[in-house]
Amino acid sequence: MRALGIDLGGTHATCGLVEDRRIIAHETLDTNRAKSLRAVLPNISDALHRLVKDNGLSLQEISGIAVGIACLVDSRTTRVLATHGKYDDAGDIDLGGWSREKFDLPLRIENDARMALLGEYLAGAARGFSDVVMMTLGTGIGGVTMIEGKLLRGKHSQAGCIGGHFPVLFSGRPCSCGGIGCAEAEASGWSLPAVLNDWPGIASSALAKYSNIGFKELFAEAAAGDTIARDVRDRCLKIWAADAVALIHAYDPEILVIGGGIMKSAEVILPAIESHVHRHAWTPWGKVQVRAAELGNNAALLGAVPLLSECMSEETRKVSQSH
Amino acid sequence: MRALGIDLGGTHATCGLVEDRRIIAHETLDTNRAKSLRAVLPNISDALHRLVKDNGLSLQEISGIAVGIACLVDSRTTRVLATHGKYDDAGDIDLGGWSREKFDLPLRIENDARMALLGEYLAGAARGFSDVVMMTLGTGIGGVTMIEGKLLRGKHSQAGCIGGHFPVLFSGRPCSCGGIGCAEAEASGWSLPAVLNDWPGIASSALAKYSNIGFKELFAEAAAGDTIARDVRDRCLKIWAADAVALIHAYDPEILVIGGGIMKSAEVILPAIESHVHRHAWTPWGKVQVRAAELGNNAALLGAVPLLSECMSEETRKVSQSH
Repeated sequence: MRALGIDLGGTHATCGLVEDRRIIAHETLDTNRAKSLRAVLPNISDALHRLVKDNGLSLQEISGIAVGIACLVDSRTTRVLATHGKYDDAGDIDLGGWSREKFDLPLRIENDARMALLGEYLAGAARGFSDVVMMTLGTGIGGVTMIEGKLLRGKHSQAGCIGGHFPVLFSGRPCSCGGIGCAEAEASGWSLPAVLNDWPGIASSALAKYSNIGFKELFAEAAAGDTIARDVRDRCLKIWAADAVALIHAYDPEILVIGGGIMKSAEVILPAIESHVHRHAWTPWGKVQVRAAELGNNAALLGAVPLLSECMSEETRKVSQSH
Repeated sequence: MRALGIDLGGTHATCGLVEDRRIIAHETLDTNRAKSLRAVLPNISDALHRLVKDNGLSLQEISGIAVGIACLVDSRTTRVLATHGKYDDAGDIDLGGWSREKFDLPLRIENDARMALLGEYLAGAARGFSDVVMMTLGTGIGGVTMIEGKLLRGKHSQAGCIGGHFPVLFSGRPCSCGGIGCAEAEASGWSLPAVLNDWPGIASSALAKYSNIGFKELFAEAAAGDTIARDVRDRCLKIWAADAVALIHAYDPEILVIGGGIMKSAEVILPAIESHVHRHAWTPWGKVQVRAAELGNNAALLGAVPLLSECMSEETRKVSQSH
């Protein structure tokens, strides 16, 4: 199957032409200054048309368009349910209509972390497994789930999708989601500066010299021997491990795939989470495998084909039942 | 549909004859001193035969036997996966064979908290809802889930079933499950004495006079104005509320049903959890209803009919697919 994929991130939109397990070609658009999705759509449309044409194909040879977006979406209605500061107009845009008008193709929309899980399932770390949890550690924390080969979605498309928002510190920090002490509020890219700011003695740490601090700097200073950096890093590792246990207890996976920007320090993070999970997750049936994601930024685009196949087989099933 | 139900608790086994939404008759056996399930089975068998006969029925008029047990079970193989100190021989007993030999009836086994959810779904607080989370607050904390009208089970029958074991305090107390800082390790009947024992100034509290302390005493002393009792009670309420948020974020339910022995203090617990959930759970689609369980100790027995129907429709589906 051939498909077009759009990965709508916070600062970039990546458009890709995908065939089964392979990205044939892709083009990345800078959307950092774009305030609305509506403003970006014409550029995306141009890029997709170029990808098809430049690769000697016609739209008739494409099965559909899959959009991954960092929002809660209702994949059944292709509607965005809640945004997080970016693309606030997304909920008002009829993307299905846009796709029919510009491409005469069916379009499906899904949360970008769910798309990435589908990609890892098709062509990456989760290949061959039917029950998968994927954590994404970055600016936020993603936690998405596949059970028995199907994405878990639930009543309002929110099940198995916001696993970074399990409270791991019941009287902790307020989270951007409205929660308290969510893993994301305690140990993510956006919450790290606030955590450091409140850390006792932070002024004496090597971390004090950075105006803009992220996990890269934290892990580097911890490795260089700064005590506070080490304490903060170890606290983050414990929080991610606790969130991993919560995800395993919630969804009973065979494998936990961990991805995201922070995994540049995978050599520290992976063994820490794995050893915690193997000691503390309640899995009388055996041990959950813990693996690093393999596809990086390509994961969501590679989720395009499984997402569209899933929708098509769903429609075939409905049609065959109504006959 | 008519069924026999067995609710195997820690100190009692309740046997019931159930017809649709109604318990026709039941008999409770004291199993407090029984060390093994094998030792109890003859009494259970006698009780079930009596229930059928005394109500003017024959075994041919019964559809099957449903067993609820406080263990992890593999409902697909009717096998007990992990016990918790009680009935340690359960994993070695072929209950399906026992049922065929003694009754010539099919038997299904399920975690008792899942059975209780099925009961509340059929005839109690969750009637009319398809997406339900049920918390049980008692000696332990149960957290079970139904999504789109089906119990969530997952790869090893453990998904949607151990919601009392989400870590809500990432560096908290060791839990009986092997985890750290699980809701159950921080605020349940079995962990309360240890929490109190470590509480600063506990010797000066009215709670110090009890040799055997439970939530009944804690809530009474808190209501009577004891400061430490109030602080411990409020900490428990926060933990249960955080666990409720985790369950909602994990499973996306329409309704949260709360049951268990501690709900004798429902007038304090229910508003506290409801107001926390309505303020802090991320549910852009609307508000999760929070309700007290209605069926009490009858819930698991009333789950017998839906459990057996579920299995039968599953078998019908498999048969029709293989033709």
